[in-house]
Amino acid sequence: MPASPIRKLVPYAENAKKKGIKVYHLNIGQPDIETPPAALDAVRHSDFRVLEYSHSAGNETYRRKLAAYYEGIGINVDHTQILITTGGSEAIFFGMMSCLDAGDEVIVPEPFYANYNGFAVEAGITIVPVTSGIDTGFALPSIADFEKKITPRTRAVIICNPNNPTGYLYRREELETLADIVKKHNLYLFSDEAYREFCYDGSHTSALQLPGIEQNVLLMDTISKRYSACGARIGALVTKNRQVLDTALKFAQARLSPPSFGQIAGEAALDLPHDYFDATKAEYKLRRDTLVKRLNGIPGVVCPNPGGAFYAMAKLPVKNADHFCQWLLESFSYENQTVMLAPASGFYSTPGLGMDEVRLAYVLNTDAINKAMDCLEKALEQYRG
Amino acid sequence: MPASPIRKLVPYAENAKKKGIKVYHLNIGQPDIETPPAALDAVRHSDFRVLEYSHSAGNETYRRKLAAYYEGIGINVDHTQILITTGGSEAIFFGMMSCLDAGDEVIVPEPFYANYNGFAVEAGITIVPVTSGIDTGFALPSIADFEKKITPRTRAVIICNPNNPTGYLYRREELETLADIVKKHNLYLFSDEAYREFCYDGSHTSALQLPGIEQNVLLMDTISKRYSACGARIGALVTKNRQVLDTALKFAQARLSPPSFGQIAGEAALDLPHDYFDATKAEYKLRRDTLVKRLNGIPGVVCPNPGGAFYAMAKLPVKNADHFCQWLLESFSYENQTVMLAPASGFYSTPGLGMDEVRLAYVLNTDAINKAMDCLEKALEQYRG
Repeated sequence: MPASPIRKLVPYAENAKKKGIKVYHLNIGQPDIETPPAALDAVRHSDFRVLEYSHSAGNETYRRKLAAYYEGIGINVDHTQILITTGGSEAIFFGMMSCLDAGDEVIVPEPFYANYNGFAVEAGITIVPVTSGIDTGFALPSIADFEKKITPRTRAVIICNPNNPTGYLYRREELETLADIVKKHNLYLFSDEAYREFCYDGSHTSALQLPGIEQNVLLMDTISKRYSACGARIGALVTKNRQVLDTALKFAQARLSPPSFGQIAGEAALDLPHDYFDATKAEYKLRRDTLVKRLNGIPGVVCPNPGGAFYAMAKLPVKNADHFCQWLLESFSYENQTVMLAPASGFYSTPGLGMDEVRLAYVLNTDAINKAMDCLEKALEQYRG
Repeated sequence: MPASPIRKLVPYAENAKKKGIKVYHLNIGQPDIETPPAALDAVRHSDFRVLEYSHSAGNETYRRKLAAYYEGIGINVDHTQILITTGGSEAIFFGMMSCLDAGDEVIVPEPFYANYNGFAVEAGITIVPVTSGIDTGFALPSIADFEKKITPRTRAVIICNPNNPTGYLYRREELETLADIVKKHNLYLFSDEAYREFCYDGSHTSALQLPGIEQNVLLMDTISKRYSACGARIGALVTKNRQVLDTALKFAQARLSPPSFGQIAGEAALDLPHDYFDATKAEYKLRRDTLVKRLNGIPGVVCPNPGGAFYAMAKLPVKNADHFCQWLLESFSYENQTVMLAPASGFYSTPGLGMDEVRLAYVLNTDAINKAMDCLEKALEQYRG
């Protein structure tokens, strides 16, 4: 089982803090945005006396409202096609367990969300990477690249849209190309849409909106990022494929139920006004613009402009970003401050790729981002000198 | 993946309710006891503004208080030996994933908690049953019975103490016998102690109190039953084996964190007065005594007196308890009421065992238990006639 590349530098950050150094955390997707008070208040004002198991598939009232939310954004599903999960994490794991046998293969464009590795280990399946590059801004690899990876054991493709870690927002035409491959080879398409609400240049197309592959698509969702409610541990697995959902429900029954408090928060969040995301989106866009401009202004740094989510991948003028990120925490400070980044190598499955890249999560306000970029600029000067 | 034997009759119960029949639920371990108001109030009075991920191992404040709780009941561990999990379910799964490879075997006295099957499927491991019988009140099988099951692939033994589904409370001497086997064959001992606080005849011995196998024991715990907080989804994996805990932490990191609200409730519950369990235990003991007496008073029914938890296994004068339990919901009512039981076959791994047995959870008050037993008595008369 591999260690999390996002969390493995944590002890070095803790040591830096013990020395009194302020650490700007751009390494992890923990937003600083407030959780909607209405969601927290629903939990605080709950008045039950027994904290019971919920239905294994989640509360029906919540699933019905969630179906209406999907309807509202052009995804046509009903509540019987939704399984509430313990975070998006569990939706990914249940999808893998329900659709693949041990030894089966799933193709994933790399770099990818590193925890897919963990769930693949748990499910006993093999991740086969197809490489996307910083030179194309991490666009979807070509059909030919995908087809080279298909073997008799290939069962599924995973995409994350908009993407973590690259921030890339897949265009509808790219997704339609992918749908053709999925259909031709009769694969499942797992679509992780955790960051759906955060698209800055262009609109979001859900995999469940692609015609012709309705029975192939599993949507993995979560309220963690959408409502800045990571600690609720509430996600969803959504599919029109009844057989897959029936199988997933058996895994859901084994773990009994998703968290009750989190479901209350998730259900209440669905009553927020339609323009709720506007302010959050505007704030993230400002941060992205600030971060990308600053990064590209540092000599030797290249950062494609990400279309969604709250991540950016940058190429740094260093040979080994793992070493550089550790050095930032262990041996560097500027005005008693430093910055924590996630080395990109952990997001690639192919050994040796991404060695000079890092992922930055723009989950801090622009003032903090500017200060973090000041640190990075000084650090690169010092590290290279 | 097998369906849950506890939940598979749910559609029949729903139909009975639609016909206006009152169903006494003795099929599932959802206690009717109130969750301690102090635990719920801690959540209701929480005043954070961002519902963040917690540490993957759980909040340190919670782990420190939990270590003090264990210390208080004679289990000597510190907070670094505790990993907070999403329910006891996840503790079991992490234990299996951390200690066994795919294809490895774990020996479990049957009948056993049916969801062990589900987690074993997820972990790709094989459950090897060693049979305990109703004639001995489901005591631990003999050493010889265990040793017959040991192969080169055996890595662990799972016990649940006090036991779900049998209610059997393992005596210290039985556990010491088990410790000898564990030590001799260098196995892991997984001890599921979800019902520790509910022992009626004799005291509880934890597997972590057995000398000589300190590095072999993994304790699986949960607040679900102890504080009637099933919906919190908070459990714990406790072990003195550093390597196992480090591995389990990687699985914990992949799923990010356990639920934040549930941790708040669990931490607050640790401040309850020491006599908190006395009233609950007295209530359960009264229910047990009522249930067991009524069962043994029904012609042809045999029910050994369970020493702990809140389950009893009974042998019924029927050939097929699966059919009988379904019939109770589909075709029977007495004064417009019926009773829902869990057929025991789903708790056995050996095909054909337990066909005339059922599990009853005494999670209802004595008045409801008496009414449920009136139904069962009339039902058996009618079913056999």
